[in-house]
Amino acid sequence: MSTPSGINDIEEGLAFQPKFDAAGLVTCVATDATTSEVLMVAHMNEEALRKTIASGEAWYYSRSRKSLWRKGETSGHVQRVVEMRMDCDQDAIWIRVEQSGAACHTGRRSCFYRRIDSGEGRTRLSFVDADKVFDPKAVYRK
Amino acid sequence: MSTPSGINDIEEGLAFQPKFDAAGLVTCVATDATTSEVLMVAHMNEEALRKTIASGEAWYYSRSRKSLWRKGETSGHVQRVVEMRMDCDQDAIWIRVEQSGAACHTGRRSCFYRRIDSGEGRTRLSFVDADKVFDPKAVYRK
Repeated sequence: MSTPSGINDIEEGLAFQPKFDAAGLVTCVATDATTSEVLMVAHMNEEALRKTIASGEAWYYSRSRKSLWRKGETSGHVQRVVEMRMDCDQDAIWIRVEQSGAACHTGRRSCFYRRIDSGEGRTRLSFVDADKVFDPKAVYRK
Repeated sequence: MSTPSGINDIEEGLAFQPKFDAAGLVTCVATDATTSEVLMVAHMNEEALRKTIASGEAWYYSRSRKSLWRKGETSGHVQRVVEMRMDCDQDAIWIRVEQSGAACHTGRRSCFYRRIDSGEGRTRLSFVDADKVFDPKAVYRK
């Protein structure tokens, strides 16, 4: 991956220059290539990004487990990458994927299964598209 | 905003408990409510999140400028929030918006105007949907 350059080059150039943050990560948004639904937001370190590009399947870096993570390695619910996009300042990546099974470890298709509602000075969540596609207890048991 | 609770409550409950990172931020993905295109990835601190919910227009926190930022305050290109979603662990937010003008400060509708291509061991970017909707020099001049 290339040496950092000026802002104009980063925003208007065609050199791939991902800007990793202090923790060595870029943010990645995965959307469903068919429905366009946002499936998840996660992070990639340099290795995850490299493996994603090389394999055509999504790899991430888990901040909580502090480890590289091939999406679906336990559940089988892999993400086949249809297209990858880079944002203007090269610190965020959007991948359009074919999601097998479900993206969320809770068993839902998307991690975004709750709407934020507000009213009378109070903010609450409510379930939307929250049907479980799989039973996480069965899939993640050791 | 409520006191942090157990994982099950955070993932399966309906209490709004955004989990801000060490810098006091959550990640926010904005998509176009009509086309479903990903427009941008940005961050919200507690105040930006509160103002977004209260006003129905997107507010963010700029890490580079270290300041709260009403989307469109300079350009007029505001984002009217159609729906807000919270993710499983409550550290990322997805907003579906009606984008006036363009989301990207470079003048494009979306910040994701370059595709990541790879081949022959080389990764490059190429422009996709990269037409400028406005001239940033004219919009942001002081």
